[in-house]
Amino acid sequence: MDSTVFASGPDLAVSRARQPYDSWLHCIRGCGRRYSIYDVVYRCPECGGLLDVEHDLEVLRHRTGHEWRTLFDSRTRVVEQPYDSGVWSKKEWVSPKLEPENLASLGEGNTPLLRAKQLEEEAGLSRLWIKLCGNSHTGSFKDLGMTVLVSVVKQMISDGREIRAVVCASTGDTSAALGAYCAMAGIPAIVLLPRDKVSAAQMVQPMANGALVLALDTDFDGCMTIVKELAANPTIYLANSLNPLRIEGQKTVGIEIMQQLHWEVPDWIVIPAGNLGNVCALGKGLSMMKELGLIDRLPRLACAQAERANPLYLSYLNDFQEYHPVKARRTLASAIQIGDPVSYERAVNTLRQFDGVVEQASEDELANAAARADRTGFYCCPQTGAALAVLFKLVGRGEIEPADKVVVISTAHGLKFTPFKAGYHEGRLEDVDALHANRPVDLPPDFAAVEGAISRAVERLGM
Amino acid sequence: MDSTVFASGPDLAVSRARQPYDSWLHCIRGCGRRYSIYDVVYRCPECGGLLDVEHDLEVLRHRTGHEWRTLFDSRTRVVEQPYDSGVWSKKEWVSPKLEPENLASLGEGNTPLLRAKQLEEEAGLSRLWIKLCGNSHTGSFKDLGMTVLVSVVKQMISDGREIRAVVCASTGDTSAALGAYCAMAGIPAIVLLPRDKVSAAQMVQPMANGALVLALDTDFDGCMTIVKELAANPTIYLANSLNPLRIEGQKTVGIEIMQQLHWEVPDWIVIPAGNLGNVCALGKGLSMMKELGLIDRLPRLACAQAERANPLYLSYLNDFQEYHPVKARRTLASAIQIGDPVSYERAVNTLRQFDGVVEQASEDELANAAARADRTGFYCCPQTGAALAVLFKLVGRGEIEPADKVVVISTAHGLKFTPFKAGYHEGRLEDVDALHANRPVDLPPDFAAVEGAISRAVERLGM
Repeated sequence: MDSTVFASGPDLAVSRARQPYDSWLHCIRGCGRRYSIYDVVYRCPECGGLLDVEHDLEVLRHRTGHEWRTLFDSRTRVVEQPYDSGVWSKKEWVSPKLEPENLASLGEGNTPLLRAKQLEEEAGLSRLWIKLCGNSHTGSFKDLGMTVLVSVVKQMISDGREIRAVVCASTGDTSAALGAYCAMAGIPAIVLLPRDKVSAAQMVQPMANGALVLALDTDFDGCMTIVKELAANPTIYLANSLNPLRIEGQKTVGIEIMQQLHWEVPDWIVIPAGNLGNVCALGKGLSMMKELGLIDRLPRLACAQAERANPLYLSYLNDFQEYHPVKARRTLASAIQIGDPVSYERAVNTLRQFDGVVEQASEDELANAAARADRTGFYCCPQTGAALAVLFKLVGRGEIEPADKVVVISTAHGLKFTPFKAGYHEGRLEDVDALHANRPVDLPPDFAAVEGAISRAVERLGM
Repeated sequence: MDSTVFASGPDLAVSRARQPYDSWLHCIRGCGRRYSIYDVVYRCPECGGLLDVEHDLEVLRHRTGHEWRTLFDSRTRVVEQPYDSGVWSKKEWVSPKLEPENLASLGEGNTPLLRAKQLEEEAGLSRLWIKLCGNSHTGSFKDLGMTVLVSVVKQMISDGREIRAVVCASTGDTSAALGAYCAMAGIPAIVLLPRDKVSAAQMVQPMANGALVLALDTDFDGCMTIVKELAANPTIYLANSLNPLRIEGQKTVGIEIMQQLHWEVPDWIVIPAGNLGNVCALGKGLSMMKELGLIDRLPRLACAQAERANPLYLSYLNDFQEYHPVKARRTLASAIQIGDPVSYERAVNTLRQFDGVVEQASEDELANAAARADRTGFYCCPQTGAALAVLFKLVGRGEIEPADKVVVISTAHGLKFTPFKAGYHEGRLEDVDALHANRPVDLPPDFAAVEGAISRAVERLGM
């Protein structure tokens, strides 16, 4: 590991004892208790509240916002592993006291933020970007958080703690990330998936990475209940987003977006909303940047739910005065098919802080929004379709204004959802009127036949 | 576009007229003819030879190797589109006179080069890295070349040339890249695919991007024959790797690898070999780096073919004295299921220059090699499996030595090959003894059942 590339900042490889930065777990209900991030604890043993990682902001303030920006910019696309990572290039903000030899990195982060010029014109927006978090090792934004969680577990094991395995319930993406990072770190992984409710592509990823894959005849929420029971055993470590460590990695997505926009804050960030860990993470990164002077204002957040799994939306309608878990119905947006989101409480805090809105998308809306973006060169997962559908709705009713600059977070690669894509273009999706369907033309291997098909398409498409 | 980030080098946004660098097409048979890269020409009209892009090396030599390294390194940290691209950050070497407004970029390149520590230990190698070209917008290395080809077409159209559509034959990856880049650039795309010989994931990508998809009842070579006939019409532009423009983008993979290794040349680069454009591109980038003083020696190249589609291997066995196209048999490595590679002639030149070897992998070997790597945190496509199998063979017979530093090029994301992965772990692949198969365990949603399954796994896996 060559530390000379960090000449402009502190050496990230500095040992724990000499590391001035620090973080710890604290209870989000404000009861004042603190725990080590290397403790096996997911809720406050005093009051039962969720835990968050808190950083020593006083020490972080020894650098100005400008100095932090310069430091992070200097580390963009550093070529050394693990500092080529978009997460670990912000190590002081993520998990400062982790020993470098325990970092489990698969080159996460540094994903493209693409300007969506055709879509912004169609929507009548000033600027629209899509942050492609799915262009990653396991194909979703979950890599950002999992690198932190698995690295912390590696540190715990190296510190002598007995951890036999790491466990999660998943709608697909989390288990893929857990499988890959654990395989790389040499730590056993156990994943509980709702049988027949995740795509084959998502099911086979943790299998390939050697995880113990348990397919349960229930939904995500049912898997989650059992996982929580399992994690009562302190040698089985819990990887779900109830565990706040993943948020520490995921929050870097907001920092990356700001870097890519030259630290100019957009007016809105639109994000798919299921278990809500990603919403909290995004908010946390942005807050920390404002607190430490890297940005001077906050964007507004828009959460996109599937109409068939919309507990946050329903709660938003009564200004979060009431919250009722719902029984999530089957939706194409399977990664957000969650009726009782683990991070509801945290997410409401985030939405209040960011003047957030929540909107929902029907199956027809999310499938057509994804296809519309695909026609302009993207390849959107159904969750990103929900986010785009919500964007179009909010623009349509004037909540997002034409002059606004908007970032949409694409949470996974479309390649994880081939049956969704194929079903759409073959017109086989229930409750979806596939407005942008495009069918292949079957032909014999004959020049005249091919030329004829092209001529017909020329007339149709105006080539 | 902020040019200040290029303060250390020439402004990439400089107009064609003021751009000192230049490139052109020349005939590889040495007949001396030159053509513009904006001409619609794929073979030398004089002698029928393939064409290559040649760069004005004299002007490029105005910078020393050290200066080019420093310049390229400085641009790895750029966040602006399109210069966040691993291809366009080397624009002077790729397509210097292209007007910036015609760049069609989807954030290609800058993919991780991951150290494969577990695999290198198992193989008894000193250093092994895997270059993950599939962690990209369309999921394969083809993005690198397609950004150049589609940008050049955009330039042609903007210069007033009539191009009605861009066409390609494909085993899947090329058509996905063509579809996405054309959709982004607003140019019609036509793709010819061998029906039932590409995966559903690969078939649906160009459909989603709005390409005209023609599924022909033949193999890749049959599609290629018809595409060549179509491209006799100068308004239908040919995107296959017969077209040398794609090689200009693909050659940056070698530059990226060297950057990621701090310009230290590995002993070997192992690469899957089908149509052979990627082999030539890799060689071209490396040669250019040596010629211009960025590196001081060349690595050796090892080409990996599937046993069922092995014309290059058969020719290698007689020292390339004879070449016979073969009828490619169905292989799991569908992206290299090619019996008559377009770039055979170029590839032989490359292999001679790089003291190259060619080896083949059986279905069993490539499937098990991919699965073995997956167990260590990767998610390999079958072509990468072939490359890894060939690596293991070459190490086994001492051709690659324990002290050697080796890079394996992973050409596509495993997510493009879900049926391959699922088939492997379900033990359903013909002629494959799935040594690393890992099956899911179906269970009722019951804590005791889950705990029991974990206990049995603990015994089995020693958790």
